[in-house]
Amino acid sequence: MNDGGPVLALSGGVGGAKLAVGLLHVLPRNALVIVANTGDDFEHLGLHVSPDLDTLLYALSGRDDQERGWGRRDETWHFMAALEEVGGETWFSLGDRDLATHVERTRLLAKGETLSGVTAHFVARFGVAASILPMSDTPVRTRLRTPAGWMDFQPWFVGQRAEPPVLEIRFDGAERAALPALVPALLENPDLRAVVICPSNPLISIDPILAVKGMRAALERCNAPVIAVSPLIGGRAIKGPTAKMLRDLDVEPSARAITAHYAGLIDGIVVDRADAAEVENLHDIAAAAVSTLMLTLDDRRRVATAALMLADRVAMERA
Amino acid sequence: MNDGGPVLALSGGVGGAKLAVGLLHVLPRNALVIVANTGDDFEHLGLHVSPDLDTLLYALSGRDDQERGWGRRDETWHFMAALEEVGGETWFSLGDRDLATHVERTRLLAKGETLSGVTAHFVARFGVAASILPMSDTPVRTRLRTPAGWMDFQPWFVGQRAEPPVLEIRFDGAERAALPALVPALLENPDLRAVVICPSNPLISIDPILAVKGMRAALERCNAPVIAVSPLIGGRAIKGPTAKMLRDLDVEPSARAITAHYAGLIDGIVVDRADAAEVENLHDIAAAAVSTLMLTLDDRRRVATAALMLADRVAMERA
Repeated sequence: MNDGGPVLALSGGVGGAKLAVGLLHVLPRNALVIVANTGDDFEHLGLHVSPDLDTLLYALSGRDDQERGWGRRDETWHFMAALEEVGGETWFSLGDRDLATHVERTRLLAKGETLSGVTAHFVARFGVAASILPMSDTPVRTRLRTPAGWMDFQPWFVGQRAEPPVLEIRFDGAERAALPALVPALLENPDLRAVVICPSNPLISIDPILAVKGMRAALERCNAPVIAVSPLIGGRAIKGPTAKMLRDLDVEPSARAITAHYAGLIDGIVVDRADAAEVENLHDIAAAAVSTLMLTLDDRRRVATAALMLADRVAMERA
Repeated sequence: MNDGGPVLALSGGVGGAKLAVGLLHVLPRNALVIVANTGDDFEHLGLHVSPDLDTLLYALSGRDDQERGWGRRDETWHFMAALEEVGGETWFSLGDRDLATHVERTRLLAKGETLSGVTAHFVARFGVAASILPMSDTPVRTRLRTPAGWMDFQPWFVGQRAEPPVLEIRFDGAERAALPALVPALLENPDLRAVVICPSNPLISIDPILAVKGMRAALERCNAPVIAVSPLIGGRAIKGPTAKMLRDLDVEPSARAITAHYAGLIDGIVVDRADAAEVENLHDIAAAAVSTLMLTLDDRRRVATAALMLADRVAMERA
């Protein structure tokens, strides 16, 4: 197994971060570079909140609350209780420790630091042996058209628990977004071992990354194998609205639908054993089936290894 | 004892708030109007922090930590610990609950609300049966000249524990500050029972209020008795740098010096029993001596009552 080159992973929040943790543990130190969705970022209480970047930071540094599934472990909520007391906006929960990340990010951005620079600073402070990059240093904002009209992401996702059906999705600012320079450079690097699309929601976690100006073209030119890991198991998402959103868009949620969604971009797909039959005899796309439920660190390592082995197989067959 | 009319109190933080609590408890509901020093306000971590307004809010609503002497009771410090972890600025302590006040104030100010409006909102939310007004709706910033040059207030007071000698003090913005309209209206109100200058540091807590455009003139025109309570006991301050600052400015700290400081403005002074001799036979200024150490609520009520009785005596002698 080739284990020399860097690996680029595209990730959203919770689901993607599980695979990212697996990759971190099976790859050499600092071989992993993660590009995170920032389409969910928003200004809240005057603070710049980057939910997916933070989920990755907390997960990769072992600071995540695995039981609750989001935020920091050993978190407390005294700020929120006091905010409620003064009549503040409490629909989006910010833990006392988590809040420090947003306050310091906002302060550094206001000083003129880039989001990439701030994130690299946090990665160093948290002792993460990987790179985490925002997909853009300029704002991209995911917006959703519902029967009630266009909505911003967080009011839909958190404020309305992702319940309003989504008829259309757009990524405001993506066409003029600034992909961090490291990303196209890495995609042109002949030593790049693989690009892994993490099992995040394709519509609202991966598509925003792909929409960033220059990203899709750079991925298409890239010589390294591009491998996606399906976020569905037997047509259902472990967490989050992926399956429901696909149905709202008249797409039957399945491993086949995920593969079709990434057609033209990926060289291989990893699906759950339950979905193995769906990816047999695919044209031009390699496939592997493994149990993709990631509850333990061993699970995460297993799925990460499966994605890397599939990439290595694709590369070997090409050579 | 006349107990019908409103009472206006001028106050800084901790020392002043103790008397304000006493006044709150001996006056009818909503008879007390407090004008607070905002010369100590500053922007920290992107937040608008108003230390004296918050000390008053917390003290008058029973949310203050009486043991520590500042901030909120049952406070936790998880935000600060996490901020230290990401390398943020930790020289100024912000508790998890206290932080909510600053975040919500900053959000409301950014929306265009005035500091008076924000403070009135907090007073209502906290159920305080008094009015609390900032001395100005525009920024006034206390600055201090030390041997090392001019310093902002908080870096001197908290950052350097008020240690650098103060050679000169100025209140940037005071001459164009906007005294809340209620203050001159109240000072012209014939029903006003008294103006009480709380036992705060005259140099850095009361002088900024007096420096606000129109404030001193309105006080001088006011018909109600103006009574100061000395912050010194036997030439020493209970808390804070009052005595040291006076000495640095070549003034011997004493009840007499406090009286001289307010000459032309006050009609009476309340001093500690230890200092009674200093205020005997004062020309044109009435005086009363009482134990001014305010550890318990009874202490606070006693000093408040002494100040109001002295005001009523002055008013009666005038009539």
